Amino acid sequence: MPNPLRAAITSVAHYVPEDRLTNDDLEKLVDTNDEWIVSHVGIKERRILKDPNLATAHLCTKVAEQILEQRGISASEIDLILVATITPDMVFPATACLVQNNIGAENAWGFDLSAACAGFVYAVTVGAQFIQAGTHKKVLVIGGDKMSAFIDYTDRNTCILFGDGAGGVLLEPTEDDHCIQDFIFHVDGSGGEHLCQPGGGSLHPASHETVDQRMHYVKQNGRAVMKFASTNMADVSGRIIERNGLTADDIKLLVPHQANRRIIMAAARRMKLPEEKILINIDKFGNTTDATVPIALWEAVETKRIERGDYIVMATAGGGYAWGSALVKWAY
Amino acid sequence: MPNPLRAAITSVAHYVPEDRLTNDDLEKLVDTNDEWIVSHVGIKERRILKDPNLATAHLCTKVAEQILEQRGISASEIDLILVATITPDMVFPATACLVQNNIGAENAWGFDLSAACAGFVYAVTVGAQFIQAGTHKKVLVIGGDKMSAFIDYTDRNTCILFGDGAGGVLLEPTEDDHCIQDFIFHVDGSGGEHLCQPGGGSLHPASHETVDQRMHYVKQNGRAVMKFASTNMADVSGRIIERNGLTADDIKLLVPHQANRRIIMAAARRMKLPEEKILINIDKFGNTTDATVPIALWEAVETKRIERGDYIVMATAGGGYAWGSALVKWAY
Repeated sequence: MPNPLRAAITSVAHYVPEDRLTNDDLEKLVDTNDEWIVSHVGIKERRILKDPNLATAHLCTKVAEQILEQRGISASEIDLILVATITPDMVFPATACLVQNNIGAENAWGFDLSAACAGFVYAVTVGAQFIQAGTHKKVLVIGGDKMSAFIDYTDRNTCILFGDGAGGVLLEPTEDDHCIQDFIFHVDGSGGEHLCQPGGGSLHPASHETVDQRMHYVKQNGRAVMKFASTNMADVSGRIIERNGLTADDIKLLVPHQANRRIIMAAARRMKLPEEKILINIDKFGNTTDATVPIALWEAVETKRIERGDYIVMATAGGGYAWGSALVKWAY
Repeated sequence: MPNPLRAAITSVAHYVPEDRLTNDDLEKLVDTNDEWIVSHVGIKERRILKDPNLATAHLCTKVAEQILEQRGISASEIDLILVATITPDMVFPATACLVQNNIGAENAWGFDLSAACAGFVYAVTVGAQFIQAGTHKKVLVIGGDKMSAFIDYTDRNTCILFGDGAGGVLLEPTEDDHCIQDFIFHVDGSGGEHLCQPGGGSLHPASHETVDQRMHYVKQNGRAVMKFASTNMADVSGRIIERNGLTADDIKLLVPHQANRRIIMAAARRMKLPEEKILINIDKFGNTTDATVPIALWEAVETKRIERGDYIVMATAGGGYAWGSALVKWAY
């Protein structure tokens, strides 16, 4: 059994924009309908940040402000700000710098972490390392994406899936074992082509041609991703439970990445977890990429589905491919 | 004095493309000349990755392959691949996933880290945390950027500065103190506007308008950045030397980010370091963003300017603003 990282999640917050994009709205844009969307991916509506002057840093700042308020701490106490995102406001500076300035975290450093849907769970373990080493006392870890900026609303395969949002946690040192217990992460770049945004990087810099070819949008081979994600998210979660001497019975809640209700349910069946042990809120928010896990975590706390001492598994799988699970003994 | 992170740099490699962009070449593109460029920024030529089918992942893969060969290890031994870049091949998947697949690192996970010019030094400390905690035994940390993809070759203020390249290190556990000793990092998002690439993120997604407005290029307020970087890179380096009970005399080499020869020399004067204690190779490569520090580190090893037991300071300052220093006691 690995040594737990003595970093506790001491606060969770989320923020989603007010505007809703419903299945009825999408019926007017592409050839789809509410019944098909609900039965195939389990989504009823998504939130969209409509103001063109606001982007991911705005969503993340709202989360950071709530965490400071919840914990009753000042921004100057924050040591490190990690933002997991694939939709930074700009190519650079990092979104973490914008959040740092927005909240006035004068003593913090920070950076953005890019691993598509796995970004937030990866970032939690990075933050936990700095706590474990004693280097930092308060680390803000935020996952946020304004996916609507990169969605092709003429492509019915992808536009029904994604929404905008952010969520985050505060990590602090703990003396006891109510902390990040373990993690298992993998990447497999051979699956990269199945879920990607080809334009705008150094391989296909933005040009009139890349815009005409609609290369600045999310592209997905749904069948390949479905197969990959449901299998691997379940297997890695099963392994982390087993190697920590636990069984599925010991797990209070699986908090999975919300990409598709069918993927989540297939993973749950493979793990032999009953539905009441799975947090699903994709119906309300769609796939918010780096924000799904912390938004789901917030909902779990808010609805009292987890409390101090409970074991939870955060599980994720997405573009890269990148996937993994983290086991947490809940601290509050 | 902080506790050192028991992570040693056990290998360094670099890769730059063969094609050179000289000051003479630039004279034909914009109103500039060799004398002005050399006297003002200290650059004689840059390397450019001309093949449009190759981008940052290619540069980083070349570095990873050399590191595996140097250390005589197989790709399957790598636990974690960190790529510091602001020019990922694609918005997603992460460049780390592409490198993982290219070298066949079947047991590695990884992600991209975005902090502009500070990315590589930040990534080294992130990797060191995972070594220190005992989680991982072999972490590849690579900084690479194909800057030429995002440079406006009609803007004489920026096109003279940047080049393409990559460099990286292997981190491994060590029992002794020849390791990453300490780091001090800061960000200040209030300086974000002075060095940025405004287009292509979620604030200004790529469109015909953003292409026409040349928003997908690096923009720099040179005067503001010069003032910020020379002062802060020196101050943070001075502080890290002092808080580890050392003086400038104990430092064998300052390995600074190569943005501008004047910035480096101003920082050195402020730190009272003689020129022979500063690694400057900006004349050959220009500013390769995340690659400058590891390329300079490679040169320091290759030319035997550092050897086992020497104290070196890696210092950086750039877009974000993000800056900092890491103190290393060299391991080999």
